[in-house]
Amino acid sequence: MGKRIVVALGGNALGMNLSEQAAAARVTAKAIADLIANGHQVVITHGNGPQVGMIEKAFAAYRKLEPDAEDVPLSVSVAMSQAYIGHDLQNALREELLNRGIKRPVVTVLTHVVVDPNDPAFQKPTKPIGGFMTQEEAQKLAAETGAAVMEDAGRGWRKVVASPKPVEIIETDSILALLEAGQVVIAAGGGGIPVVRTGENRLEGVPAVIDKDYATEKLAEQLGADLLVILTAVEKVAVNFNKPDQKWLSELSPAQARRYIEEGHFAPGSMLPKVEAAVTFAESAPERTVLITLLEKAGEAVAGLTGTIIREPD
Amino acid sequence: MGKRIVVALGGNALGMNLSEQAAAARVTAKAIADLIANGHQVVITHGNGPQVGMIEKAFAAYRKLEPDAEDVPLSVSVAMSQAYIGHDLQNALREELLNRGIKRPVVTVLTHVVVDPNDPAFQKPTKPIGGFMTQEEAQKLAAETGAAVMEDAGRGWRKVVASPKPVEIIETDSILALLEAGQVVIAAGGGGIPVVRTGENRLEGVPAVIDKDYATEKLAEQLGADLLVILTAVEKVAVNFNKPDQKWLSELSPAQARRYIEEGHFAPGSMLPKVEAAVTFAESAPERTVLITLLEKAGEAVAGLTGTIIREPD
Repeated sequence: MGKRIVVALGGNALGMNLSEQAAAARVTAKAIADLIANGHQVVITHGNGPQVGMIEKAFAAYRKLEPDAEDVPLSVSVAMSQAYIGHDLQNALREELLNRGIKRPVVTVLTHVVVDPNDPAFQKPTKPIGGFMTQEEAQKLAAETGAAVMEDAGRGWRKVVASPKPVEIIETDSILALLEAGQVVIAAGGGGIPVVRTGENRLEGVPAVIDKDYATEKLAEQLGADLLVILTAVEKVAVNFNKPDQKWLSELSPAQARRYIEEGHFAPGSMLPKVEAAVTFAESAPERTVLITLLEKAGEAVAGLTGTIIREPD
Repeated sequence: MGKRIVVALGGNALGMNLSEQAAAARVTAKAIADLIANGHQVVITHGNGPQVGMIEKAFAAYRKLEPDAEDVPLSVSVAMSQAYIGHDLQNALREELLNRGIKRPVVTVLTHVVVDPNDPAFQKPTKPIGGFMTQEEAQKLAAETGAAVMEDAGRGWRKVVASPKPVEIIETDSILALLEAGQVVIAAGGGGIPVVRTGENRLEGVPAVIDKDYATEKLAEQLGADLLVILTAVEKVAVNFNKPDQKWLSELSPAQARRYIEEGHFAPGSMLPKVEAAVTFAESAPERTVLITLLEKAGEAVAGLTGTIIREPD
């Protein structure tokens, strides 16, 4: 019998513009369709770093040219990024499945994720979004808009925003209903639209971008998934990455992973949130398993042939 | 037993910016929650004229300031407008239902609508989007971008785009699965993301905005709805509207409606598409009924107390 699998795609893996996105969506669709063809239930999540940054820049340009234009909050830009990406991803996957004779609807669900208004992340923005800038451009942006900016891993300067932890996925019951009807669901795009509870029943958007690996982990828990697949730019997780004693890991227990985290083997904003999400999911219930691998290796990894598997030892 | 109801909201009824939209969404939520409280299954659709126009203007401003910025096609702007509006509408309705102790998930589904690439609408843009301009501004926009522009009912100039007829709603099975799970669905926002079939299984976005009344009618048919409720700025449909012999209509057969259409009683882009959609739905299967009324009167109208009802006579 097939597994219930939640697959997380990186935002950078989706390209920096619509033509790159369409091409990336086609490659992604082949990998995901392999899983569906093998009888698994699949939910797909994705990042939105470049895309939400682009949307933010468009609305900033609009305000610059038309001072009366409204100030679209980051939460609404995240919502729009779910549509911007879901549209291409859904259509590419739909086409790939139909080309293989598989008639399973693919659907994109606008997804809200509750965060804690007291999350310390709101005091310390760390999540880079949008394109790269020179230091001068970054300082100008900061002065003009109050945005936080940061040098990003030697690649240039970027805008940074708060990245609070996900507490609850609002649309879990909807995603479950679609899965149970045999459908393929794209959800929690860009880590979900960040909202806080205000009053008893109200949700209000907040200026943040939730890490998509943490949001995906939370979704996988709430859906009772068997397997969380985190796709990234390497086939396996390594310790001593890019050093002479680098070592690729095929299997990892949550306890070992915690030790490696403490020893600083994983880069923040890159492999660290993936391994942290993996540990949380693997420890959340018996039998829960995480795979970290390359998009192109997803099918092989799920079949047990490659990737890094994180789970409690038997 | 409750009916399956598809409710169409006007895009203008949702306000011209986010603070107006949040207030409008709260008013709308009360009217829709009345229907749900009375045991009906509800799908909500909405227009997006002002909103998609605003999104288009933001990306035009972005291209003006950054010539390398990508040219976001209208279909992607429509997709983003579904998220921009669905986000507020969903949250307002969720809150209103919870305030009444009704625990029914509310979910927004990204919706694609197939159109015919040979639809004559592509040769003759008629659908106004975005804000009003002076004649001079409109002519400048047309010269700079190749956009079609048109004087709109004495209120000023606007950009106009092609408005082809909807042929098929791609996400029907997903919306049905959610309805059958007892959920409230927001779908086909802005008339749906316009796509054409290219090749056997591919969908490709096209530069158009589908009329939301026609798209809603098509969705109501595909969902096997009992009742289509089209909300507008008047409590009932009138013949000789705004003339000395104006007459409000409480009940109308499709045959009578066709006669009034031929006699030119209904304004294109306003009441005409609503009455045309009503005729199509009322004639699509026995017992199918359409109501046209004010948002605030939706509950009363569904209870048979007001509005214009369009159906085949017993």
